[in-house]
Amino acid sequence: MKYGIAIFPSKSVQDEANSYRMRYDPRYDLVPPHITLKESFEADDKQIEELVTELKHIANEFEPFTINVNKVSTFYPVTNTIYLKVEPIQELIDLNEKMQQGKFPENQSYSFVPHITVAQELADDEYSDVFGSLKMKKIQFDDEIDRFQLLYQLDNGSWSVHETFVFGKEYV
Amino acid sequence: MKYGIAIFPSKSVQDEANSYRMRYDPRYDLVPPHITLKESFEADDKQIEELVTELKHIANEFEPFTINVNKVSTFYPVTNTIYLKVEPIQELIDLNEKMQQGKFPENQSYSFVPHITVAQELADDEYSDVFGSLKMKKIQFDDEIDRFQLLYQLDNGSWSVHETFVFGKEYV
Repeated sequence: MKYGIAIFPSKSVQDEANSYRMRYDPRYDLVPPHITLKESFEADDKQIEELVTELKHIANEFEPFTINVNKVSTFYPVTNTIYLKVEPIQELIDLNEKMQQGKFPENQSYSFVPHITVAQELADDEYSDVFGSLKMKKIQFDDEIDRFQLLYQLDNGSWSVHETFVFGKEYV
Repeated sequence: MKYGIAIFPSKSVQDEANSYRMRYDPRYDLVPPHITLKESFEADDKQIEELVTELKHIANEFEPFTINVNKVSTFYPVTNTIYLKVEPIQELIDLNEKMQQGKFPENQSYSFVPHITVAQELADDEYSDVFGSLKMKKIQFDDEIDRFQLLYQLDNGSWSVHETFVFGKEYV
């Protein structure tokens, strides 16, 4: 089964991201707006059970933190994905790194850039228009993050949540 | 914010349900296939924090159980929703009841019939065709259930997971 790990920001941020994704992101229907912590990877039931234990340990080590989003950016020319840039604070970097070590498969293709995708797979001329218009928007929010989620992918490409991991000493 | 509580069956069951929902359920994109334990209700941040504590207590009291699905049924003529009928075992009834008591709002309009919706909001003649065809399908699966999920609704109508509650003495 294919798994991934992500943070869902608060409802207001998801609603704002969706207002762009609705028009510019063909994967709008497959998953709510999110910050990917670990790209999708294959694991069987036994492996995922071990990784769930690891994820509980990781969640235990963190306290809630605030993320800051203040601009629209792009991965162009690598891909024409447009995203809300999330300031790469230490907590996000640490979370991402811990999910590439030990029992976790190392599967990161690019260096970690925390972001919320709002547009992707656009035609070249559409990309320029959309980025031109989105980069003029005033984007500014702080958002408290207190959990991350382990998801799995269904056959239709959509993602279901397997488990939520809340920061702090929640798990025994 | 609007919340709801549901069980997501295993990937194979979700994939099967989606193969029907894709064609017959206009809410296909809004939430993965699920068994509703508690219909949507309004709660603010403080209320939901209290309910999360209650849900942890409830999850602690249950052990994983097996659900059985062996037919396609319908709520017609009340609504023309078509669903995979989930045998109403005691665990499901108890879970549903506990979420109508104490600190939970009482918000159940009909008696509890555990089910996985696969078609809804069909035109009358389409309903007859679809039910005629689906009720001929051999539907038979057992599925182990070890968790439920608290979800909240985004402005676009889709549902995001707030938290997962795994059965057994997981929480302190």
